[in-house]
Amino acid sequence: MTYIRNAWYVSAWAHDIAPERPVGVQILSEPILIWRNAAGDLAAFEDRCVHRLAPLSLGRCEGDRLRCMYHGWLYDRTGRVVAIPGQGQISESARVRTYPVVERHGCVWVWMGDAAAADEGLIPPVVGLDNPDYILGHGHLDFAAQALLVNDNLLDLSHVRFLHAKSAPLSEAWAQERPRFTARERSVHTEWWIRGESPKPGELGDTYTRSDFYVPGVLLVTDRGYPRGTADKLNGQEPNLERPPFNLFCHLVSPMTDRATRYFYCVGSHRDYGDHAVRARDNLMGITERAFAEDKKMIEAQQHNIDITPGWRFMPATADRGVILFNRLVEKLAREEIALLSPASPTISAHR
Amino acid sequence: MTYIRNAWYVSAWAHDIAPERPVGVQILSEPILIWRNAAGDLAAFEDRCVHRLAPLSLGRCEGDRLRCMYHGWLYDRTGRVVAIPGQGQISESARVRTYPVVERHGCVWVWMGDAAAADEGLIPPVVGLDNPDYILGHGHLDFAAQALLVNDNLLDLSHVRFLHAKSAPLSEAWAQERPRFTARERSVHTEWWIRGESPKPGELGDTYTRSDFYVPGVLLVTDRGYPRGTADKLNGQEPNLERPPFNLFCHLVSPMTDRATRYFYCVGSHRDYGDHAVRARDNLMGITERAFAEDKKMIEAQQHNIDITPGWRFMPATADRGVILFNRLVEKLAREEIALLSPASPTISAHR
Amino acid sequence: MTYIRNAWYVSAWAHDIAPERPVGVQILSEPILIWRNAAGDLAAFEDRCVHRLAPLSLGRCEGDRLRCMYHGWLYDRTGRVVAIPGQGQISESARVRTYPVVERHGCVWVWMGDAAAADEGLIPPVVGLDNPDYILGHGHLDFAAQALLVNDNLLDLSHVRFLHAKSAPLSEAWAQERPRFTARERSVHTEWWIRGESPKPGELGDTYTRSDFYVPGVLLVTDRGYPRGTADKLNGQEPNLERPPFNLFCHLVSPMTDRATRYFYCVGSHRDYGDHAVRARDNLMGITERAFAEDKKMIEAQQHNIDITPGWRFMPATADRGVILFNRLVEKLAREEIALLSPASPTISAHR
Repeated sequence: MTYIRNAWYVSAWAHDIAPERPVGVQILSEPILIWRNAAGDLAAFEDRCVHRLAPLSLGRCEGDRLRCMYHGWLYDRTGRVVAIPGQGQISESARVRTYPVVERHGCVWVWMGDAAAADEGLIPPVVGLDNPDYILGHGHLDFAAQALLVNDNLLDLSHVRFLHAKSAPLSEAWAQERPRFTARERSVHTEWWIRGESPKPGELGDTYTRSDFYVPGVLLVTDRGYPRGTADKLNGQEPNLERPPFNLFCHLVSPMTDRATRYFYCVGSHRDYGDHAVRARDNLMGITERAFAEDKKMIEAQQHNIDITPGWRFMPATADRGVILFNRLVEKLAREEIALLSPASPTISAHR
Repeated sequence: MTYIRNAWYVSAWAHDIAPERPVGVQILSEPILIWRNAAGDLAAFEDRCVHRLAPLSLGRCEGDRLRCMYHGWLYDRTGRVVAIPGQGQISESARVRTYPVVERHGCVWVWMGDAAAADEGLIPPVVGLDNPDYILGHGHLDFAAQALLVNDNLLDLSHVRFLHAKSAPLSEAWAQERPRFTARERSVHTEWWIRGESPKPGELGDTYTRSDFYVPGVLLVTDRGYPRGTADKLNGQEPNLERPPFNLFCHLVSPMTDRATRYFYCVGSHRDYGDHAVRARDNLMGITERAFAEDKKMIEAQQHNIDITPGWRFMPATADRGVILFNRLVEKLAREEIALLSPASPTISAHR
Repeated sequence: MTYIRNAWYVSAWAHDIAPERPVGVQILSEPILIWRNAAGDLAAFEDRCVHRLAPLSLGRCEGDRLRCMYHGWLYDRTGRVVAIPGQGQISESARVRTYPVVERHGCVWVWMGDAAAADEGLIPPVVGLDNPDYILGHGHLDFAAQALLVNDNLLDLSHVRFLHAKSAPLSEAWAQERPRFTARERSVHTEWWIRGESPKPGELGDTYTRSDFYVPGVLLVTDRGYPRGTADKLNGQEPNLERPPFNLFCHLVSPMTDRATRYFYCVGSHRDYGDHAVRARDNLMGITERAFAEDKKMIEAQQHNIDITPGWRFMPATADRGVILFNRLVEKLAREEIALLSPASPTISAHR
């Protein structure tokens, strides 16, 4: 599996990182410490003390500094060791790697690549727990599987009819609609109509769904309801999107290691829908928890089959369109990253 | 350890495979799906969908077909994909491997090698749960060890006096008798007299025991009782075998992976012995369960010692006669299989 | 990590090896059987039967002999097979390795190297459970980490102020004292004064602490109390050591594998201190159990970080003085061992 590094990865819900309570996480197999000083400012460090690799996440905040609680080495917020008990001189190389870190949409985002390239504009424009306009539930779960399999699951929703046949029953209408996929600069955009089905259970209507899956693995899906017949009247084109979404799903996939993935999610509805919004949130949370248990079982079994199958490969299919576009995009971005790191070599220049 | 592929392996008790309830097993490290259609006909498939390696054992039977419940690909009973939701054309290569599968002796047998060579005549002639003439108990347990160690355990019953000294106490008579081993085409046959000991606990007599250990790992043992002195009168030769066995043990060893083995067993007695048969069955089940727990502990410890001992080897002994004959037979059959797969190369022919 | 083999390793508390009750342990990744005959004499064997690698620790003592309880092979106390059921001739090579073994200081010590070099004089002169002059508590725990990390923990007590800040609170005085380290032939000796702090909680005074860390990983620490001002009066030099230690800590580190370490400990006080000694023992046991839980968490996390960090290394520090001296000593002894095993080769001789 290819991972891009020049991207923002979700490491935690923002509200789970309290001031002066360091938390250790793992992203792309790297141990990372997320912490806030008393003022609430975030920092992200390599989670291993330069002295003897003790995790700094077992450390203690002291004002604006962080102390390793094995032998007491003290770090400032740039990752530099500024005090060692019983020692005067401190080597310049006594520092841990720091990562660009940003709080947005109720999440803590960490940039895993070249710090100089970190651009907050690349944080996906999702709707998160800090958005007062939505009534949202949230949770997270871990998969014993690589992130690729979780991403692929989210990029090919044709599985809902089968894997979630009982937990998230869908009409025949849903099955017959074909999404339109568009590859964008850092995402795959998808939209489709479901004729004769309202986002509100038990109501007639048409539903227009938009989904954006951003690198490295962030999905925003919105459903809007329209009067029955709108899809046909518009000939399947985009409707007026002025009204807020009725259902909203935000899924954030974070690769911990090559065999472990953390999955954050929030789901709910817009406040404009009043009591309906609360019911929609509760309904979606119930569906999500049942459906994710099914996804987890299937994806971990898939990973197991991959692990015991030398030379394994997948067989492409029409319904994989989104999967293919997204993985192609990841490959392209990964190649560009590598090109940035390896300038044209002098040898090659000399031949010109 | 050498495994032969052109052989029937026990995958399950037949009664554990209900119609339209697919079951996933593992044999020789391969994930295998065993399923019956509504009519009860068996099929055995590679247990990973060609699309994205999801296990078909999480799938759903639909009449004579099986649907992968991840994205809904539909397989016919030959392992071919016959429908993909939302897709017209289906590649000829969209098929999973199938295995020859037969129900016999109350077991489901799977042929792991060349399908063209599958011969039902090679299913060992054991007595199983479908035999109305016997009163049998049955069970299975898993060992965290390679099948070789379980086979060896069954092929050298000299261990019973030591490992099972308390769970299956044997007389001194038992210890002094030496079995006669004979290598046959696909099995090792063993027979021996125990003088002064009846198969019926507390009774005087001689016991004549026959054991056949068939490739890949199937053991049938029968005990018959005779009046005290019969063994000597016959000078240790085979007695009249017309009366049915008093005790019967059927052990079926199935290698799941190189470090995991499933062990099926049934034990009991012939109905002709009336109430004695029921008591014998209950007695043998009790002994078996205690003794197998001892075997499991020993064999898993042996496997652990093998794993931590580079260049480990065993030291042959007189009592290993059956082990040696059987392993030699397996090596020979394995060589023959390989020879069948690799015809004399043109280069070599040219030299003639 | 470098391990020396020509050294005595603690394998068990002596009282845990009862006559005729074989016990299996692991040292330097080797499975070892410790057993006593009925007379109580110790022997240490390679814990795998030459026949089929069954663990002899599942065996049975028979007088002065030990029987493998898989197929009944019988060993004498020199590790030689002296009887095989049903077999007359026994190969000369039918023997397991034995290890020199000694009971001392309430422990069973095993020599892992060249038996000819085994010298009881090299058993570290610790105080153990067999010493009637001390009131001691004891215990053991296992770490999922290499012994190096446990040794290092004990050789750099500067961690107590941080890791054990709550479980073993120390005064500022303690923090300011610097130990004097001395490398000896097979140990690192350390001593230091703590001014203004008595070993007896709540009492004024000065404490003089001596610690000896012996290869392969045996620590003895003693605290003695003196009137306030003694340290200054003696200008930090060694005081009169006639009175017995008030606190005594004996820690025995045994490398099971490269990722598992067994840690034996006893702590307490000298009987001369009467009731104080009992209270000191109870106090130290409480502190020890809390502190060791903290050590275990930190050391196992350190091991995890090592395992996921290719090319990992530590950064040396002033407080590591004892660690550095000890590891240098181990490297030197290891080199000497290897030199003993590899005499000048004939090729090299020919060049002379």
